[in-house]
Amino acid sequence: MPIRPDRLLADMRALAAIGQHMTGVNRPAFSDADIAAREWLRNKMMNAGLAAEIDCYGNVYGRAINADRTVVIGSHSDTVPFGGWLDGAMGVIYGLEIARCITESGSQSCGIDVISFQDEEGTYLPFLGSRAFCGDNLTAEIETAKSKDGQTLKDAMSKAALPGNAAVRLDPRRHAAYFEAHIEQGPRLESSGRKIGVVTAIVGIKSFRLLFRGQANHAGTTPMDMRHDAGGAAMCLGNLLNQRMPAIGGPQTVWNVGNMRFEPGAINVVPVLAEVFLQVRDISPAVLAEAEHLVRALAAICAESFKVDVEVECLHDTEPAAMTPALAKLIEKAAAELGAPSASMPSGAGHDAMIVVRHIPSAMLFVPSIGGRSHHVSEDTSDVDIVLGAQVLLRAIELFMANGAR
Amino acid sequence: MPIRPDRLLADMRALAAIGQHMTGVNRPAFSDADIAAREWLRNKMMNAGLAAEIDCYGNVYGRAINADRTVVIGSHSDTVPFGGWLDGAMGVIYGLEIARCITESGSQSCGIDVISFQDEEGTYLPFLGSRAFCGDNLTAEIETAKSKDGQTLKDAMSKAALPGNAAVRLDPRRHAAYFEAHIEQGPRLESSGRKIGVVTAIVGIKSFRLLFRGQANHAGTTPMDMRHDAGGAAMCLGNLLNQRMPAIGGPQTVWNVGNMRFEPGAINVVPVLAEVFLQVRDISPAVLAEAEHLVRALAAICAESFKVDVEVECLHDTEPAAMTPALAKLIEKAAAELGAPSASMPSGAGHDAMIVVRHIPSAMLFVPSIGGRSHHVSEDTSDVDIVLGAQVLLRAIELFMANGAR
Repeated sequence: MPIRPDRLLADMRALAAIGQHMTGVNRPAFSDADIAAREWLRNKMMNAGLAAEIDCYGNVYGRAINADRTVVIGSHSDTVPFGGWLDGAMGVIYGLEIARCITESGSQSCGIDVISFQDEEGTYLPFLGSRAFCGDNLTAEIETAKSKDGQTLKDAMSKAALPGNAAVRLDPRRHAAYFEAHIEQGPRLESSGRKIGVVTAIVGIKSFRLLFRGQANHAGTTPMDMRHDAGGAAMCLGNLLNQRMPAIGGPQTVWNVGNMRFEPGAINVVPVLAEVFLQVRDISPAVLAEAEHLVRALAAICAESFKVDVEVECLHDTEPAAMTPALAKLIEKAAAELGAPSASMPSGAGHDAMIVVRHIPSAMLFVPSIGGRSHHVSEDTSDVDIVLGAQVLLRAIELFMANGAR
Repeated sequence: MPIRPDRLLADMRALAAIGQHMTGVNRPAFSDADIAAREWLRNKMMNAGLAAEIDCYGNVYGRAINADRTVVIGSHSDTVPFGGWLDGAMGVIYGLEIARCITESGSQSCGIDVISFQDEEGTYLPFLGSRAFCGDNLTAEIETAKSKDGQTLKDAMSKAALPGNAAVRLDPRRHAAYFEAHIEQGPRLESSGRKIGVVTAIVGIKSFRLLFRGQANHAGTTPMDMRHDAGGAAMCLGNLLNQRMPAIGGPQTVWNVGNMRFEPGAINVVPVLAEVFLQVRDISPAVLAEAEHLVRALAAICAESFKVDVEVECLHDTEPAAMTPALAKLIEKAAAELGAPSASMPSGAGHDAMIVVRHIPSAMLFVPSIGGRSHHVSEDTSDVDIVLGAQVLLRAIELFMANGAR
């Protein structure tokens, strides 16, 4: 069954026009543009013959009317501030197009439900929509969640006039599987010439804040051997981490020292304080545990060698989420049938699929990102690759349905 | 000839009360407190029998009336914001007290001129007072100098109603030598149990800004070998510098990576930009030149290894200033006569003496800093050490006068 490329691309471009910013999109969760996009999407779903609603969290859900058993296809239509046109939106419009194709084909074996989750990007609360859909109790988190500029999530939800709406819930009796397509957001597909990424797992993430505390001495009058240089310890930690991590992980293990801050930050004062923010990602819980051990051990070594104190705080610890192997195989098979070179790969970024897979079989498909870029107005994928991704996803779902949609 | 400890300490405490902040002093150049302190000082000088004036730059100068040939004793009475009570002020009151002692002794061999230079700390223009005293042409710099909060030096000078006053100038026919006493601002004297530091030279300073430029990639989706990590290069540079500098300098060479800043500074984004501020100080021009060579070589190595670009900018390059050896010997001799253990040492910080020594023989004497602290309200020196320092300085000047004040 062929998808209709022109219709797919036209809808993607129409969605990108809502909150357009240069060649990208500025549509943070609950912004006017985000809510307008969700209204647009609900209408599109209704035109496609789905029973569509926006739930109390902002999730847009289009329900196949005549089906008891469905495949859910979706992603999110919110963006980071001044982000790209594809991150999230592409996966949602794939769902819309595939729902239309399946309906038009008259297939009765299984319906397609389409969903756009709310606030995947964490403007207020990351994965708000998919977590709510999956039945997480979010009451306490919603009470306290705020955006970076201090707006509360509760106010944002009220402003969008959503709280009266019913919540849409995952129902394993209805929802047989979840498929999410997404741009890769990295350079692997492009640099290897592959067109389809078959996601094996979404990496787990351990994020750390390290605080080294020394003494703010005069950098001219304090001999080197009498210093307690918090900055020196922090640079040493970052450097040792870069040297030692490769031995712990595999070729797909990644880490990043993303920020470093010195106090007082004067060229002529030995830093009294150095704050380091770093992160490790891998699909293996064992590698992540070993990485945490390494971070703590190196922090202690550097603190001792620079005669400073250190605190290591784990800010954030997400477990890796393996995708359902049987579904991944269907994507691989669909790609092969359509002559699209594919590669198995981890997802280095978080996605709604990592929430949903806790409850029902789930799979992710990546298409190439030009230059590996994302979260930026220059984020892009060629039309040919976008169309091919949708076609492969539709074929994988046909294969799933042919297997009896278990 | 004995100084009068009670009078010395009482004057120091009276001066510290002007702009007092907790146990320290907040008296930045041209602040109300600074100008009040200068008025107070001018009165004190007049009471000591000196012809005293505040010049157009804010320098307070007390001139020995009946002398054709004088020793200038001084330092500065401005402070860093919320600084200590001794940095600068002690050296000025030493001058006042010694002028009184010499006058009271009826000595006719040589007079004492006392000076408090303006803005040594660089609230607007570092060493404004001593540079003006020495005849530097400052017209262009005064035109553009601003404080950190955007106040112009010209406005500050006008507000203090100084521009009408005459400038006080160094006159080598009158001014035979310059002596400046100061707190050490470091821990060497205290930790070695010495009471008097005989300054051999004021270090030269080379300050650098390094800017590494990479690519802001997603830290989850970009494989390690495809990154252009500006932060990694910056940490590597700081670390290599700490490892390699000891081989270049001597035990008194110091350096400091005082600030580091990443952009965008997000834990999940590979830093596109890392800015490093560092400084090297030594009394040897050869060591400083070699250090600059090392900084530039390491920056290039780190940039290459992290596949980023780097710019190295020399922000500031002050040459070392050797003090006059014959005068240093007199301080050493005076300390020995008075039973005060002394040590020769470089000054790791800049002082007005490094300006004045370009024109007339100059010397500096240090007293111990408790805990090595300065530029902070906790800056302190014991009364006993303050009194001993003044006594040693007076004795050194007596020895200088006995030599004929050449």
